[in-house]
Amino acid sequence: MTFFREKLGDAGVLMDGEEEEMRRYNSDWMMKWVGRSRCVLKPASTAEVAEVMKYAHERNLAVVPQGGNTGLVGGSVPVHDEIVLSLLRMNQIEALDKWSGIVTCQSGVVLEHLDNYLADRGFMVPLDLGAKGTCTIGGNAATNAGGLRYLRYGSLRGNILGMEAVLADGTILDSLSCLRKDNTGYGLPQLFIGAEGTLGIITRLSLLVPSRPKAKNVALFGCRDFWSVKRAFLLARQNLGEILSAVEFADRAALDFVFTREGLRDPLTDQHPFYILIETSGMNEDHDGEKLHNFLEAAMHVADGESDAVVTDGVVAQDATQAAAIWRLREGISDSMTFSGYVYKYDVSLPLPRMYELVEDTRIRLKAHGVADTEKIVVGYGHLGDANLHLNVCSISGRNDEMLALLEPWLFEWVAGAKGSISAEHGLGQCKNDFLHLSKDTSAVNMMKQLKAAMDPKGILNPYKVLPGGSA
Amino acid sequence: MTFFREKLGDAGVLMDGEEEEMRRYNSDWMMKWVGRSRCVLKPASTAEVAEVMKYAHERNLAVVPQGGNTGLVGGSVPVHDEIVLSLLRMNQIEALDKWSGIVTCQSGVVLEHLDNYLADRGFMVPLDLGAKGTCTIGGNAATNAGGLRYLRYGSLRGNILGMEAVLADGTILDSLSCLRKDNTGYGLPQLFIGAEGTLGIITRLSLLVPSRPKAKNVALFGCRDFWSVKRAFLLARQNLGEILSAVEFADRAALDFVFTREGLRDPLTDQHPFYILIETSGMNEDHDGEKLHNFLEAAMHVADGESDAVVTDGVVAQDATQAAAIWRLREGISDSMTFSGYVYKYDVSLPLPRMYELVEDTRIRLKAHGVADTEKIVVGYGHLGDANLHLNVCSISGRNDEMLALLEPWLFEWVAGAKGSISAEHGLGQCKNDFLHLSKDTSAVNMMKQLKAAMDPKGILNPYKVLPGGSA
Repeated sequence: MTFFREKLGDAGVLMDGEEEEMRRYNSDWMMKWVGRSRCVLKPASTAEVAEVMKYAHERNLAVVPQGGNTGLVGGSVPVHDEIVLSLLRMNQIEALDKWSGIVTCQSGVVLEHLDNYLADRGFMVPLDLGAKGTCTIGGNAATNAGGLRYLRYGSLRGNILGMEAVLADGTILDSLSCLRKDNTGYGLPQLFIGAEGTLGIITRLSLLVPSRPKAKNVALFGCRDFWSVKRAFLLARQNLGEILSAVEFADRAALDFVFTREGLRDPLTDQHPFYILIETSGMNEDHDGEKLHNFLEAAMHVADGESDAVVTDGVVAQDATQAAAIWRLREGISDSMTFSGYVYKYDVSLPLPRMYELVEDTRIRLKAHGVADTEKIVVGYGHLGDANLHLNVCSISGRNDEMLALLEPWLFEWVAGAKGSISAEHGLGQCKNDFLHLSKDTSAVNMMKQLKAAMDPKGILNPYKVLPGGSA
Repeated sequence: MTFFREKLGDAGVLMDGEEEEMRRYNSDWMMKWVGRSRCVLKPASTAEVAEVMKYAHERNLAVVPQGGNTGLVGGSVPVHDEIVLSLLRMNQIEALDKWSGIVTCQSGVVLEHLDNYLADRGFMVPLDLGAKGTCTIGGNAATNAGGLRYLRYGSLRGNILGMEAVLADGTILDSLSCLRKDNTGYGLPQLFIGAEGTLGIITRLSLLVPSRPKAKNVALFGCRDFWSVKRAFLLARQNLGEILSAVEFADRAALDFVFTREGLRDPLTDQHPFYILIETSGMNEDHDGEKLHNFLEAAMHVADGESDAVVTDGVVAQDATQAAAIWRLREGISDSMTFSGYVYKYDVSLPLPRMYELVEDTRIRLKAHGVADTEKIVVGYGHLGDANLHLNVCSISGRNDEMLALLEPWLFEWVAGAKGSISAEHGLGQCKNDFLHLSKDTSAVNMMKQLKAAMDPKGILNPYKVLPGGSA
């Protein structure tokens, strides 16, 4: 270990004896996955990452790359005693091309930090998610993070232009194009996006950053059933079109956790089975307000050939404080539930019309097996615009293996049967890797294995993750 | 060859003796690259493509996949006598998910055909380019085509959700997810996007398709210099923001070819050194008109601290016919030049501020070597919003090896020196593969070679393309 101290300096190495600090590198924030690494390395440059990997490669030492460690599938913590390689010290924002809207930075920059930097310069990160204060842009890239703005700005696959990465043997791959368009050769950066650190360690990247909108509107609507939720989404797309920046939904049971836990006031007079949050962002406040008004007209009045209005009640935020309060309802669901018991979290994609069926079927299944209060503890919410459902089941009395056995693999199989994805945005990590076959054809799994074998033949990069049974 | 007739039927095989028809599969539309294949195969299904590749793999037969054959770098025609595998019969549009805006189709669908199908259903292809009536969506994917709408809708890398491809040995890779979000495993479809058919043959794909805008505006502006062009782009981004769907530019010399060749009327009263075409697309006609008006106010008046107006003159199309006429000026440049002489075409990305410098330097260089009329024959135009310059040099007297020797590799080296890309959107094909090192680091070229060797060890897929010196 003298080697690491020599190469990285004291600030770059955390070893035995510093147990307290080491704990947060060894386990995820839900304490669901706990490793027992005795060595955390914190390189400050790409060259240092390369030194570490070269050394590890020669000696067959396994390495887990880690960003903000906010994942939900155990992808960024060691399974056993792998070396943890934290990118948090690589947090430099290096350049901003204001003409083309391209930022270049190291991978350890915290998402919110990057967004604040860009806000001061009239731009924004085309990605937003609850963990923004902790997660890193490199971790976002490694997990192809989706989040709240996907509907408007698309995937990281489309927004990442270039990348520098360190390969398993310590080779530095320089594919850091900072151009909007560059069609010279294969899309190498794409190999590392969504690979969860199993094919290489992302050290720097360049990202398309859109102009920051001048106007923002946030509104919350109540709906009588999921059919109305779907109709409201279509109306929003038709009326709000290019200014639509988020369409989120939650059922009443999900919001009840937030109301109870955080003592927040219900902004609507009556209770509704479903809620939709709509956000618009644009360059002209008056225009956006008028479009939102037109949407409301269409949604609150009885539509042609329909017997009921699509939304029953609603509120439009009058200022930034009210907008934040509405967002807090949606963003607070996950934390409120975690504080209320042990939560089984699922993140799936489904064809939109069948999205909520899974929540109903889960309640029926648990109820049939004697679980109480299923209407309250099984909740559905998520990114309606992306057909991405977060289904959470809260066991108030804590960890519950019987409940888990009822949920898995049944739930994953239900999703596979509906041609959905068992992981819409959270990745596979060590949580879902053995269920990969439910979302991927054998031919695709085989090609993944082939890529892994070619790029990391010793299997030292983030082992036991993504691929079934871990790396060979 | 009995094998092919047996498997594909008579409609699927074109052989010796059908010279006339075979010619168009052997050469590109500019007749710049001419192969001499004696066998063109036209499979009608993925299974048939797989049969062909299995057979070819066993016998070490080289295969060139071909879509609409509209490329500019010789990527889709044989170099020698490789088998041409045309995807044109695989032209079925299979499904449209109207809730999420996802279309699934075979790769041989013609781009315009796909867009017309979607138009009838309220959607659009997030890609548009001059060759839309001939090029195929599979060819677009294989070359990561950019085109006119990139500014608004982003790259195909971001819009392609899933893919089916046939590998070198005939294995069918099924990675055809039809979900907006699916983070289960590596981004396999990305391997084939932009790989120009050297890693596999794209047979089916699923694509995000945005709602078709209800309103469209097109305007043409004259500018006194390139500095004003850049300023106009910034003003457009600020005022038009989310409704901006294209920002194109051309110098006067480029438009002169169109005026002369097509006898088109100049829509502006005076001549200007530079022109910008701006297109907006949105959901509300009144709002878009007002935004465009605000942009004009800002651009035609003298700005704070600036001594001149950013645009000198301009015209806004009053109807679809006028809009088409303005687009014709921009889209007609390439053809008008081709009809006027032999054209050396370059498609490069550069940092926006230096974009036009290359045109000026090219004129200076040619002039210094005795070439006449460089102000007329060297033209610059392209996708300003993407910093993507099309530099064309027209040799009125036909093919001119001395001129070519002055242009290459000098021009590619100039681009490399400015940290640009030697191929912004056209790819490498057999035209630029030997210059790959000018846009890609050695580490990236090595990884490309490694991927090629792993996925096509016999080097039978589109040989002599993309990689320097062709496949091993």
